[in-house]
Amino acid sequence: MNPLPTFDDVQSAATRLQGHAHRTPVMRSRTADALLGAELYFKCENFQRMGAFKFRGGFNALSRFTPAQRQRGALAFSSGNHAQAVALAGRLLGIPTAILMPADAPAAKLAATRGYGAEVITFDRFKEDREALARALAEERGMTLIPPFDHPDVIAGQGTAALELFQEVGPLDHFFVCLGGGGLLSGSALAARALAPACKVYGVEPEAGNDVQQSVQAGRRIRIDVPKTIADGAQTQCPGEITFPLIQQNVDAIFTATDTQLVDAMRFYAERMKLIVEPTGCLSLAGAQACGVDLKGARVGILITGGNVDLKRFAQLVG
Amino acid sequence: MNPLPTFDDVQSAATRLQGHAHRTPVMRSRTADALLGAELYFKCENFQRMGAFKFRGGFNALSRFTPAQRQRGALAFSSGNHAQAVALAGRLLGIPTAILMPADAPAAKLAATRGYGAEVITFDRFKEDREALARALAEERGMTLIPPFDHPDVIAGQGTAALELFQEVGPLDHFFVCLGGGGLLSGSALAARALAPACKVYGVEPEAGNDVQQSVQAGRRIRIDVPKTIADGAQTQCPGEITFPLIQQNVDAIFTATDTQLVDAMRFYAERMKLIVEPTGCLSLAGAQACGVDLKGARVGILITGGNVDLKRFAQLVG
Repeated sequence: MNPLPTFDDVQSAATRLQGHAHRTPVMRSRTADALLGAELYFKCENFQRMGAFKFRGGFNALSRFTPAQRQRGALAFSSGNHAQAVALAGRLLGIPTAILMPADAPAAKLAATRGYGAEVITFDRFKEDREALARALAEERGMTLIPPFDHPDVIAGQGTAALELFQEVGPLDHFFVCLGGGGLLSGSALAARALAPACKVYGVEPEAGNDVQQSVQAGRRIRIDVPKTIADGAQTQCPGEITFPLIQQNVDAIFTATDTQLVDAMRFYAERMKLIVEPTGCLSLAGAQACGVDLKGARVGILITGGNVDLKRFAQLVG
Repeated sequence: MNPLPTFDDVQSAATRLQGHAHRTPVMRSRTADALLGAELYFKCENFQRMGAFKFRGGFNALSRFTPAQRQRGALAFSSGNHAQAVALAGRLLGIPTAILMPADAPAAKLAATRGYGAEVITFDRFKEDREALARALAEERGMTLIPPFDHPDVIAGQGTAALELFQEVGPLDHFFVCLGGGGLLSGSALAARALAPACKVYGVEPEAGNDVQQSVQAGRRIRIDVPKTIADGAQTQCPGEITFPLIQQNVDAIFTATDTQLVDAMRFYAERMKLIVEPTGCLSLAGAQACGVDLKGARVGILITGGNVDLKRFAQLVG
């Protein structure tokens, strides 16, 4: 098994990402501060390249390839932000990429991934097992499979967003992070533990898909059915082999948010902060509002993960 | 008549606004750069307090009140951003404010203006003349009337957004500014002339409401009917007595944008830059795309004026 990444790996990732990833802005909102009675610091990864933090992990992983790996290329399976992250990182680094996507994925997503220069390989998601297919393909072509979260280089890359946040605003009292498979959360927690040891770190996952909350309570990885939630980036069924122990070690609590709370947060971002945030990216703010932790007078970090939501879908949700 | 404001007045306004107005971020977009073949610098006044640049002019005007004026208060007529700008500036400066608004204005706008602490006075817009009513009220109560654009302190305040942009990114080759009554444009041109004398400055107004374009061509102020356009912040009928000569002296050209072009720009901001921009705030980008000026390889400033669009309306327009 892979060794657990450390804060040193996050720092090395930050060096690799310099000049390639955006150093995204930290935004404030008087209205949000008044609403929660706290000082909120929003780290805006919706302004990251390709519209989400995933670029950090994808780029970091590919930039560590050996010459042989670079030649053979990278393979990923995803219909979301990870696909575009690997595709864009590959283009920037001159590494061929192939992305396995469902044949019935939205045409716009297929086109966007091809637009970043990746070969898109479609499969029938009702008949074929995606992960088995990906492994077989990687084997056959000698490509390196880059999983969406359970990989030390991906985790270290994702941790650089929190690293930047703490560098810019100093220690925080509480830090809310959106949670799917736990790549971002476990990387963020590494940065928080090193730079703000007293800061409480929380993951927020969809109420309908609380696999990590259940796993933490049980003390072992629990697998759930594919959850039904508008947070399409957090429909994971189980925490990773690497992310789970990191979360157990470094995260203070896992909270959940309902779809209604996510839509309320999306509306707040649009109306009051003039930001487009995808449903999954609203988990952190929705969690801060719903968790019941007393945040009065505290300095609170909110990680916004991305802004890649189809505009028609956005209009349906908030209109 | 009031004397024309100068760049000195813009600088003084910037000092007054320090610590009160946000220094809004300048954003970049690789996609926008590729689309126009230029380096674009977006000054994001949608992140300004109360969601639009209007706060700058309102605050600057009220902060210059004499003690007697402060006691009697300020009066404004507006159903848009200027109302909230004067209301908020009054609250921050401890100056009473009254805003004349149509009785059938959206309940949310009436509530928002009251929420900033202003007294809202409603009138029947089908039977009463707003400007005459405002003058009578100001007279009767001894309040100072603050017009939405044709006032030297308002113009100087609005010019501070461009001042910040040039301070942050240095000289530009072209600068596109949204244009209603011309307060923002004439203030911006004062800053551009002083800080980047070679920079071409353009105003962009709705095609259906090109009163300034017609006026510049005619060499005198032309009055048009209330234009039908989704750019509700640019439905002015005539340039101002002060803004018009400033535009004649300092602005290189006036362009127009259609409502369809504004919706396309709104969609671009939302999809690619993750920003909520109100229709009027899209004039500058739409103008840069449609104007026919060769921008290849140039450094181009785009002033985004505000983000105050009702979310249902936004959803209708872009969904």
